[in-house]
Amino acid sequence: MVHSSPFISDVPVADALQAWYDACAAAGCPDRVAADLVPLAEAAGRVTAEPIWATRSSPVSDVAAMDGIAVLAQDTHGAGPTSPLLLGADGYVVVDTGDPMPDGFDAVVMREQVHYVGADPKVDAEIRSAVPPYQHVRSIGEDISAGELLLPEGHRLRPVDLAAAAAAGATRVLVRRRPRVVVIPTGDEIVPVGSPVRRGEILDTNSLMLVAQAQEVGCEAWPTGIEPDDVERLRTAVRDAASTADLVIVIAGSSAGRDDYTARIVGELGTLAVHGVAVRPGHPVVLGAVDATPVVGVPGYPVSAALTFDIFVAPLLATLEGAAAAERPEITAKLARKLPSVVGMDDWVRVRLGSVGGQVVASPLPRGAGVLTSLVRADGLLLVPAGVEGHHAGEEVGVRLLRRLPEIERTIVAIGSHDLVVDVAATMLRGADPTLTLASSNVGSLGGLVALRDGLCHLAGSHLLHPATSEYTLPYLDELMPGRELAVIRLVHRDQGLLVPPGNPLGVTGLADLGERDLSYVNRQRGAGTRMLLDQELRKLAVDPSSVRGYAREEPTHLAVAAAIAAGRADCGLGILAAARAFGLDFVPVAEEPYDLVVAAPSLDDPLLTPLWELLHSADFHGAIAKLGGYNTTETGRRLR
Amino acid sequence: MVHSSPFISDVPVADALQAWYDACAAAGCPDRVAADLVPLAEAAGRVTAEPIWATRSSPVSDVAAMDGIAVLAQDTHGAGPTSPLLLGADGYVVVDTGDPMPDGFDAVVMREQVHYVGADPKVDAEIRSAVPPYQHVRSIGEDISAGELLLPEGHRLRPVDLAAAAAAGATRVLVRRRPRVVVIPTGDEIVPVGSPVRRGEILDTNSLMLVAQAQEVGCEAWPTGIEPDDVERLRTAVRDAASTADLVIVIAGSSAGRDDYTARIVGELGTLAVHGVAVRPGHPVVLGAVDATPVVGVPGYPVSAALTFDIFVAPLLATLEGAAAAERPEITAKLARKLPSVVGMDDWVRVRLGSVGGQVVASPLPRGAGVLTSLVRADGLLLVPAGVEGHHAGEEVGVRLLRRLPEIERTIVAIGSHDLVVDVAATMLRGADPTLTLASSNVGSLGGLVALRDGLCHLAGSHLLHPATSEYTLPYLDELMPGRELAVIRLVHRDQGLLVPPGNPLGVTGLADLGERDLSYVNRQRGAGTRMLLDQELRKLAVDPSSVRGYAREEPTHLAVAAAIAAGRADCGLGILAAARAFGLDFVPVAEEPYDLVVAAPSLDDPLLTPLWELLHSADFHGAIAKLGGYNTTETGRRLR
Repeated sequence: MVHSSPFISDVPVADALQAWYDACAAAGCPDRVAADLVPLAEAAGRVTAEPIWATRSSPVSDVAAMDGIAVLAQDTHGAGPTSPLLLGADGYVVVDTGDPMPDGFDAVVMREQVHYVGADPKVDAEIRSAVPPYQHVRSIGEDISAGELLLPEGHRLRPVDLAAAAAAGATRVLVRRRPRVVVIPTGDEIVPVGSPVRRGEILDTNSLMLVAQAQEVGCEAWPTGIEPDDVERLRTAVRDAASTADLVIVIAGSSAGRDDYTARIVGELGTLAVHGVAVRPGHPVVLGAVDATPVVGVPGYPVSAALTFDIFVAPLLATLEGAAAAERPEITAKLARKLPSVVGMDDWVRVRLGSVGGQVVASPLPRGAGVLTSLVRADGLLLVPAGVEGHHAGEEVGVRLLRRLPEIERTIVAIGSHDLVVDVAATMLRGADPTLTLASSNVGSLGGLVALRDGLCHLAGSHLLHPATSEYTLPYLDELMPGRELAVIRLVHRDQGLLVPPGNPLGVTGLADLGERDLSYVNRQRGAGTRMLLDQELRKLAVDPSSVRGYAREEPTHLAVAAAIAAGRADCGLGILAAARAFGLDFVPVAEEPYDLVVAAPSLDDPLLTPLWELLHSADFHGAIAKLGGYNTTETGRRLR
Repeated sequence: MVHSSPFISDVPVADALQAWYDACAAAGCPDRVAADLVPLAEAAGRVTAEPIWATRSSPVSDVAAMDGIAVLAQDTHGAGPTSPLLLGADGYVVVDTGDPMPDGFDAVVMREQVHYVGADPKVDAEIRSAVPPYQHVRSIGEDISAGELLLPEGHRLRPVDLAAAAAAGATRVLVRRRPRVVVIPTGDEIVPVGSPVRRGEILDTNSLMLVAQAQEVGCEAWPTGIEPDDVERLRTAVRDAASTADLVIVIAGSSAGRDDYTARIVGELGTLAVHGVAVRPGHPVVLGAVDATPVVGVPGYPVSAALTFDIFVAPLLATLEGAAAAERPEITAKLARKLPSVVGMDDWVRVRLGSVGGQVVASPLPRGAGVLTSLVRADGLLLVPAGVEGHHAGEEVGVRLLRRLPEIERTIVAIGSHDLVVDVAATMLRGADPTLTLASSNVGSLGGLVALRDGLCHLAGSHLLHPATSEYTLPYLDELMPGRELAVIRLVHRDQGLLVPPGNPLGVTGLADLGERDLSYVNRQRGAGTRMLLDQELRKLAVDPSSVRGYAREEPTHLAVAAAIAAGRADCGLGILAAARAFGLDFVPVAEEPYDLVVAAPSLDDPLLTPLWELLHSADFHGAIAKLGGYNTTETGRRLR
């Protein structure tokens, strides 16, 4: 069935896949790629195109299963611990494991239980126990019988299958050849990775990713050059690709309307089955066929492109190989916070997972289709189906795993304020122990303490100033978590200051300038320690926050504040020296503040966290921090509470 | 720490690994393989040798997140549904998604919400709603901020990581080179796969498997030629391999004592750390180092070789790459039958898994170290630790998965009598739907019915003759499962007959000969339908079973009976025509019997089994059965009850 009107939006996934498969069938696309006869040594990972029947038994004859002597069991009657029995030279044959049983013998006595008596050529074998027939004999066909089905068609061959196929008499096997995938990047603004990027140009990171995704599922894949926005050229490129590939992927560039282009060309050259699916991110997907080859148009936003591959392309490629697509295992996790979702769209939410106190917790990551790092950092995907409005905090949800559960269980989950020292700790821990991950989510100091209270993390990074006492972090613990046994470990002292454009063109000297001059400021979000510091300092200086231009403009991290200043959106903002350095900004020191790690007291003895506590006292770690600049490690590792 | 006396047997796994790692360190083996700087397009699957820090933000500037017009938000105040507002040509700039925000503009109005008024060059844009600053604008660094940690050291790069690294400014990344593994097969009796096998020779299936296992975990790996049993030559081969490889595997051939050889050479050339581990199968493992290269001697039994790779080699290779070894996910399953185990040895039991009635059930497979098909057919590994005596039937056990759970849930579990028609059904079902598996375990008809009763399978294949009624299968159901709603579907009628050597040299004419002549017989196990048929026929002929020579010698399948006759161990045995053909035997027909599938009645509507019921009525299936010979499909698919 080909859709009469393909130009429908918001097609549910199952319908879209079915419409695409139907259109491909109608357009004469092959069900399966062709088969190749390949030597076993080259067949790992390939899919059988026909069943493998055993043509040979294994073992091919009865064989000795032990080193020892082959005997006729009935000859051993009467042998016992107190009645040794002598077998003459004709009554036994020395055999090694794997040797065929000599004619006329039906059992093996282990080497350790035989004593030889006499001298060549007349050596008798003395045994001290009788044996039943077929003792220590592997029967012909014990492993494989000629004529049996070893492996069915449609089986992806593993190393052990190759060995068994060889034992069963095969030397070559008929397997599907790898599907060929051609990826066509498009767009006047797109430039290849590695070339200099001018203003308005965008790196072609998508074809790098999509080619690797196709290779990861067992295909040959390659990109074409980047096609400019020229219908005639793109038409030629699609047609050329369709003539050599088993599947063609057209990337829509960065422009939202670019998919129309692909849809139009697919419709003109072949069959357009679907244009627009009810999936977020990923919505403007194009599915069709050209010259008996499936064609898919993927959106230019990288998360959309990656998920479109997973949801639509990978299943079709698996079908072409005649194998099952690798489904991700699903686990149940507790949702860390409320998750609203739009009804009418399948919503694929990237989540971080952590195992805290025996409970797997899922924290949603940023949901923008352009935030590729949300996929890099994701441990799993949470599908909120089209019919569901979202989930409450604490709800149990199903999560498809992107990392294996044992790795997730070896992950220290840090939620709280962002500091580069935490990143340095993460990479040093991993470098020393590849099984250990320190995953940090940046939600500000207060957010981290709340997450710790709610059992969502192992540790919270905090530099939260308490205005009434001018102490950091500690006073909040009794307010937020009265009665909880908590430990507080000092990570570092660090300099906070005003980040200003290179050369400090406005001659900013400190926070007092905010009250005296019309500077535009970029702020951190509510609950961030840096914002508390600002508020405290403004109070001291008697500056009314509402008089500060840009006070309401919030950014979630130091680096984002630095980026905003580097982009010219603000004249200054409070942040750490490392952030200024990352963006080439100048730094006007304002205060030194402590940054501490808060944990449940029992975590001090948790083996998962032990390497972190050790790291805090290592000279290498202190050296790495010193290189960042703006830090003081005098108290690093000290327990404050 | 190097063990003072390495010649200890039954070393526990953790101790053995530690002793090996210590010996490698003492011998100067590198902690990690060297690092290569490789282009991103070649870096998928490789492990980072240093952290990847972002040197570039993404987006690099504030960009439009929608196609539309860039505006200054404050210019839009007052626009509303009933109060359209006109922006002059200087008051807006047309932007596409991804375009940098033009200077002086801070928000985007979507294309769909703009009407153009007037003619070139004076076109005004009419909007009907005010917008806040930064609406539909992606901020600089929204995805990646320059200076942030993108990925730590020790991370295996996935496609999405490559795209993010490119966006963060990388074009090449420093990754570990692939570890190099050399596999040395040894033994005078070992011959290469593909060569003719003479009596006493054994195919070198192990190096095929071990090379593929090493490649599967990301290594370069290759086999040397087969080394004969010559200490001098083997010494040279080990030393040569150690000079080029990061790890050397020596396969001990088939002989049980061959590991002594490897141990001796490793000890002479370098350090022997461990000889003999407390693991079954796998016991005679050799671990050591030669010329600053780790060397492992693996047993020749194929299951031992495969598991030794998993348990000892894979973790070391992962360490060399600086990555975590891929741990298998573990699930809980109900054990189908009692499982004794030897105390003092870790016992790795291969199990089949099936999801029956919402419960995952684990059925142990044959445990011999030579039964490679036990690993081919395994869905999981059940580790019975050294300190545990075994498990009871029905106990909940932890199973490490060799297949993904969604695949296991798409598996029809058949337990019962073996018939090739079931194999044909398995491969035809898979050919039509690659996600569907029909897994059959052969335990005889009665065993299958008991398994069905105990909820261990979806269907039981049975041809069990009821002597009192001369009916097949049906009378047993009320005896075994009174009150259960069962359905019985006819699979085929098939010929049973006496399998005899080619040319029928003894001129066997039928079962009557068993009473009249001194023929040796090979029997099936108790509970097998074929044995019931024999007993019934012998009763009819008034032949005393105890007078039949070989009556007590039991084989578990038709093919095993055929193999025994082909090996000359018996003159005849009852079985099916297909088994005779597989071994080139002659066939003396005795009876035609029905072979039926018994299922719980609700299974008739289970979507998992629907394709099987459809297959039973397909002409292709009937045609494939006809080709086997000895079958009659007249009643195939008929429901008897």
